[in-house]
Amino acid sequence: MSSAAVAYARKNHPRFLDELKALLRIPSVSTLAEHKGDCRKAAETLLADLKKIGLENARLIETEGHPLVYADWLHAGGKPTALFYGHYDVQPPDPLDEWRTAPFEPTERDGNLYARGAADDKGQVVAQVKALESLLAANGKLPLNVRVLFEGEEEVGGEGIASHVAAKPAHLKADFALVSDTELFAPGLPTLCVGLRGMIYTELEVRGAKTDLHSGMYGGAAPNPFVALCQIVARLKDENGHILIPGFYDGIVPPSPEELAAWRSLPFDEEEYRKAEVGSKELVGEQGFSVLERTWARPTLDVHGMPGGFTGAGAKTVIPAKALAKVSMRLVPGMTPACTFELYKSHVEKIAPAGVEVEARMIHAGDACLIPVDNRYIQAATRALREVWNKETVFIRSGGSIPIVGDFERHLGLPSVMMGFGLPDDNLHAPNEKFHLKNFELGIESVIRFLEEAGNL
Amino acid sequence: MSSAAVAYARKNHPRFLDELKALLRIPSVSTLAEHKGDCRKAAETLLADLKKIGLENARLIETEGHPLVYADWLHAGGKPTALFYGHYDVQPPDPLDEWRTAPFEPTERDGNLYARGAADDKGQVVAQVKALESLLAANGKLPLNVRVLFEGEEEVGGEGIASHVAAKPAHLKADFALVSDTELFAPGLPTLCVGLRGMIYTELEVRGAKTDLHSGMYGGAAPNPFVALCQIVARLKDENGHILIPGFYDGIVPPSPEELAAWRSLPFDEEEYRKAEVGSKELVGEQGFSVLERTWARPTLDVHGMPGGFTGAGAKTVIPAKALAKVSMRLVPGMTPACTFELYKSHVEKIAPAGVEVEARMIHAGDACLIPVDNRYIQAATRALREVWNKETVFIRSGGSIPIVGDFERHLGLPSVMMGFGLPDDNLHAPNEKFHLKNFELGIESVIRFLEEAGNL
Repeated sequence: MSSAAVAYARKNHPRFLDELKALLRIPSVSTLAEHKGDCRKAAETLLADLKKIGLENARLIETEGHPLVYADWLHAGGKPTALFYGHYDVQPPDPLDEWRTAPFEPTERDGNLYARGAADDKGQVVAQVKALESLLAANGKLPLNVRVLFEGEEEVGGEGIASHVAAKPAHLKADFALVSDTELFAPGLPTLCVGLRGMIYTELEVRGAKTDLHSGMYGGAAPNPFVALCQIVARLKDENGHILIPGFYDGIVPPSPEELAAWRSLPFDEEEYRKAEVGSKELVGEQGFSVLERTWARPTLDVHGMPGGFTGAGAKTVIPAKALAKVSMRLVPGMTPACTFELYKSHVEKIAPAGVEVEARMIHAGDACLIPVDNRYIQAATRALREVWNKETVFIRSGGSIPIVGDFERHLGLPSVMMGFGLPDDNLHAPNEKFHLKNFELGIESVIRFLEEAGNL
Repeated sequence: MSSAAVAYARKNHPRFLDELKALLRIPSVSTLAEHKGDCRKAAETLLADLKKIGLENARLIETEGHPLVYADWLHAGGKPTALFYGHYDVQPPDPLDEWRTAPFEPTERDGNLYARGAADDKGQVVAQVKALESLLAANGKLPLNVRVLFEGEEEVGGEGIASHVAAKPAHLKADFALVSDTELFAPGLPTLCVGLRGMIYTELEVRGAKTDLHSGMYGGAAPNPFVALCQIVARLKDENGHILIPGFYDGIVPPSPEELAAWRSLPFDEEEYRKAEVGSKELVGEQGFSVLERTWARPTLDVHGMPGGFTGAGAKTVIPAKALAKVSMRLVPGMTPACTFELYKSHVEKIAPAGVEVEARMIHAGDACLIPVDNRYIQAATRALREVWNKETVFIRSGGSIPIVGDFERHLGLPSVMMGFGLPDDNLHAPNEKFHLKNFELGIESVIRFLEEAGNL
């Protein structure tokens, strides 16, 4: 690796780590009103650094929540433009008493840096910025054009960035996005995430009597909305995980034989996953599909809660007038939120038992996304990662959604290179979040080398 | 009606009404700590009156909550002994702004007396006491032996009286109970309630993963406890209201052809009931049974709430580690709580879908009860009611449970004469509770004549 920028990064690594620690000390918890000032302070800290390392047009973009951080460097005439994305906000640190060291006092231990936000996502944001610094400091320029857009509301829904992107402002024009908010499939294994499931999140409301009734007086004559909801849900998904909504699976684009073969070669043990991650007595889901297929490339349906009625301790003999179910479906390529919602809505209306009225409401939705592995930026990233990590890159998908990736694609036409450096055991959203120090170092080098490769396209 | 006691009651009616009003002015709301003193005051008011009219051994019996009121008159050698039951506590008056006149300032309007507790149960308690006063004042004695036991915790579960009765103290030895806490089936129609459903109230807990999981990452592999609960509930009761637990209906004692014929002649319109009381688009339940059969003489199963998971506004994509359902079953004669619970428990364990563990817990239970209409005290009551109301008595059941009736039967071996004088539209537990003034008057006379009839047995 002969890159001058990589040499600069290695030399300056202790300072880079200090700067990351300084950012981690700011408790930028986006969901808590009392940390509003801390969120702005984290944004201003990043803004100041982007200016200092030589980016231009650096500014905060106000939203209804926490500000976006924008900066650019656009002097690589004829070269592609990258849009860097990450977020500076963090999850709340609770439960505090389960942290071995204070969540906002970053602490090195066993080759890791422990702090809230270490991996999600400040460590990755700083890796991006320090890669830019290294390139600018070593070469006086970047190998391609770069725009940076960091947000401070990722942990609370990302409304600000979503509406900003939806407005398609000219300053977001680019050729691809570099999204650093994901993880390696396994330690030391360079990983690109190339697919995300979409989703629809719905609320199902069932109404029976006009008012709450006593189950002694009316049980046997008045419809029970919870029983009706259970009967409906039981007719949405069977005990083999097969979804019973007619047309639900129509049009699904399955993974290619090559992609499936690649997944089979990943270091993944279903029994180990069951024991260590899930902890249930068995795994469930559609027969004939592996766990990775079921969670990455198959749609599913889950119920998250069933509000209404009596939920306290003890007993209350109420037949509630209404009951709700929070029901979401994960979608895969070939499915659309609108069409899936229509199929679902007309099915639940059809199967609702006698005596009740049912209403299906959409709460929010997101498209599935799939980035072809032969995309030139994905290929450039692969070359960079092979060099830095000394291994072939694995292409994975994620069962979850990263809404911003869909927004970049839908509104700006950008494919995303999801290159992240977390590890599966980094305790995101949990006590003792950590970032592996070696991954911080190799993450910076990976971004440097990726930009150099992408600049050669 | 030549009874001297009845003549006394008629003459003293204005004062009886004033005494009822005085009791209604005491806000003896048993569930609110700030009314603890008022509950005691109501108990002491009744105690003083029982002494004044000539009952003996009058005393408060302390419980862990509000006191019981006890008194007796046991000088009718060779005659049966009646145990009078009623309660002096009342429901909270909320919502206050829906009352036309203040809940604790009894107000006469349109032939009714409006106040919290007017019908439930102070009006009926005072009717019992004034019947005793009339008999003692007119005759210097009672036609049979009487024990009085009033409680102050009926609206909060009745723990105090339940444990007192369970201890079978000698001072509760009697031949039958007179329970005045029910209503007429229709205005002017003398009514005895001779059957109550029993119940088991359970909690069903389903556990999947060891911790809450993200439905994006794990949806399709991790078991979803809510989906499993829905599948279980859907296999407990079908869409025709038929309960699917094997053995559930075995041994049920159906109403006699005579009883069914009597129910068919009651002034009851199912469509009117649907519209006015339930307000659902259809009634539900087992086919081939009338509404009165389904709510009085058939078992049923209801779900009251399903705690767990995410129940807030909006969306959270959690697969909760566990979910609960509050499930109760109403039981009818021929079923026992213990046996029904066993059938239910083994069935849910058998039908639980793969991947989850299920646990059924009993929260509380009560026996069904049925008093034969040819019971001599029921027959005596019928003769008294015919004379006072000038109509044949109707025998009804109630779908609910009155736990004290089961306790009297189980612990003391007493059949209960459930002779109450409320009306279906008395707004129990709601704003503008009322007691029909004529029913207060005829209620007193009914109790007088019933005791006279029972004294002749």
